[in-house]
Amino acid sequence: MGLNSNDLTIGDSYSEVIVDDLTRTQIVQYAGASGDYNPVHSDEKFVTEVAGYPTVFAHGMLTMGMTGRMLTNYVGDGRLTYYGVRFVNQVWPGDTLTARAEVAAVREEDGGTVVDLTISTTNQDEKFVLTGNATARLD
Amino acid sequence: MGLNSNDLTIGDSYSEVIVDDLTRTQIVQYAGASGDYNPVHSDEKFVTEVAGYPTVFAHGMLTMGMTGRMLTNYVGDGRLTYYGVRFVNQVWPGDTLTARAEVAAVREEDGGTVVDLTISTTNQDEKFVLTGNATARLD
Repeated sequence: MGLNSNDLTIGDSYSEVIVDDLTRTQIVQYAGASGDYNPVHSDEKFVTEVAGYPTVFAHGMLTMGMTGRMLTNYVGDGRLTYYGVRFVNQVWPGDTLTARAEVAAVREEDGGTVVDLTISTTNQDEKFVLTGNATARLD
Repeated sequence: MGLNSNDLTIGDSYSEVIVDDLTRTQIVQYAGASGDYNPVHSDEKFVTEVAGYPTVFAHGMLTMGMTGRMLTNYVGDGRLTYYGVRFVNQVWPGDTLTARAEVAAVREEDGGTVVDLTISTTNQDEKFVLTGNATARLD
């Protein structure tokens, strides 16, 4: 169930395709689950004619959530203690995103071992959409 | 459309009830939207008989997402540039959560004005479930 500190070397990395061809339906599913019904994420007429975007786009926190799934797949469940991100570029329907974590440090905290990870998520054009860092317990 | 720097003083705060009586259905909706189908969030038999918890519990990132909705309601859409949290305690079905943001600083960054916010989300027993910080553009 997840990593342990003996497995880890600084610079180790793990990556996953977290979404392949994001759909407008998945964005609307996230609106329903999170309660964030801002029309820029679901209303094509509003977003193009009023807000001035080319089409609807994903909630930053949907990208954050999908990137977080990669993190818990890597470190194991219930181990993530800190997770922070910068929203760097927008995510659009049709995007395919790859999320990557790299081991930045393995250290002691509160009497246990933790790993610090550097995170980045890129789209199919190798453009960063999200960057960040996370900390997870290892025992 | 959101805050501007003239409105803000350090120590100003904003809060919202982000969920009132969280349901197991809402947790499953989040599983579907995020693709995180870990059975600890949806399978009552597994979680009680195998994993040893009293019942299913919410994804940390569902709490993070609902707290993020409070943030965008406060600062305005498309302005959040950084968002980082610590997962402090678990969130259970039936919980009612209140999320709060407090102005920690108003400063210049990359030629624009930004606000730094301190965040906390508490349950109906005034127990912290999430703490963190965020930065948002003001112009």
